[in-house]
Amino acid sequence: MPTREQIQSTIEAYVDAVGRHDLDATVAVFAPDAVQEDPIGTPPNVGRDAIREFFVKSYAAAFTTTLTGPLLITGDHAAVHFTIDVETGGDPFIVRVIDVMRFDDDGLITEVRAIVD
Amino acid sequence: MPTREQIQSTIEAYVDAVGRHDLDATVAVFAPDAVQEDPIGTPPNVGRDAIREFFVKSYAAAFTTTLTGPLLITGDHAAVHFTIDVETGGDPFIVRVIDVMRFDDDGLITEVRAIVD
Repeated sequence: MPTREQIQSTIEAYVDAVGRHDLDATVAVFAPDAVQEDPIGTPPNVGRDAIREFFVKSYAAAFTTTLTGPLLITGDHAAVHFTIDVETGGDPFIVRVIDVMRFDDDGLITEVRAIVD
Repeated sequence: MPTREQIQSTIEAYVDAVGRHDLDATVAVFAPDAVQEDPIGTPPNVGRDAIREFFVKSYAAAFTTTLTGPLLITGDHAAVHFTIDVETGGDPFIVRVIDVMRFDDDGLITEVRAIVD
C-alpha cells in the first residue's frame, strides 16, 4: 500500500509535469501497465506507450495547470481537483478536472479516470 | 443520455437526503440495479435493497452534509465534492467526500464510487 506522502508527491509531480508539457516526466509517474481513461467513458489507453501518445496530442495545445484541491485519499485510491488554463489569445478558457487515481506500492499511477468539465 | 440539469438535480437531492437521514429519499435517487462502492476499493453494494441497508447503518450516526463543490460533469458521469460534518459533542469532525457517479437516462444513479478522507 502506498503512503499518503507517496500519493501526494505523485499527484503533485503529475500535475506539474502536465502543466510544463514535460512528456518524459509525465509518463514517468505511470506504472508500465497503467490504464488511462481520459475523459471517463471513453476507451482507455493501456500502457506507457499509449499514454505517451495521448499526451503528445494533448501537448499540441498551449495550457498551464493549477492544483486547486481538494485532494482526497482512501487507501490506494485518490481523487484530486485541478484546472487547465488554456491559452486562447482572447478570453480565458478554463477546463476543470477531477482525476480518480489508483497507485501501486511504488506510488506510481496504475489507473486514472478523468472527469472533465 | 441524462441532461446536466438532471444530473445536478439528482446530486443535490442525494446530498440533501443523506444530510437529512431520509432513507426513502436517499434510495429513490438510485436506479434499481445500481452499484455502490463506498468507500472505493471495498466490495460494492448492488441494488436498492443492499444500498438501503448501507444507509440504515450510516444513519445510526448523527451528521449533516454540505455540498461544497466542485461539481463536474462529463457525459453521463459526474464527480462532486461534499463534506460530512459528524456531531461528536466535542471538536468538529469533518469527513470530505468525492463521489464519482454515473447516471441513466432518467437521471438516476447507476454507479457511485466514493473517495472518503
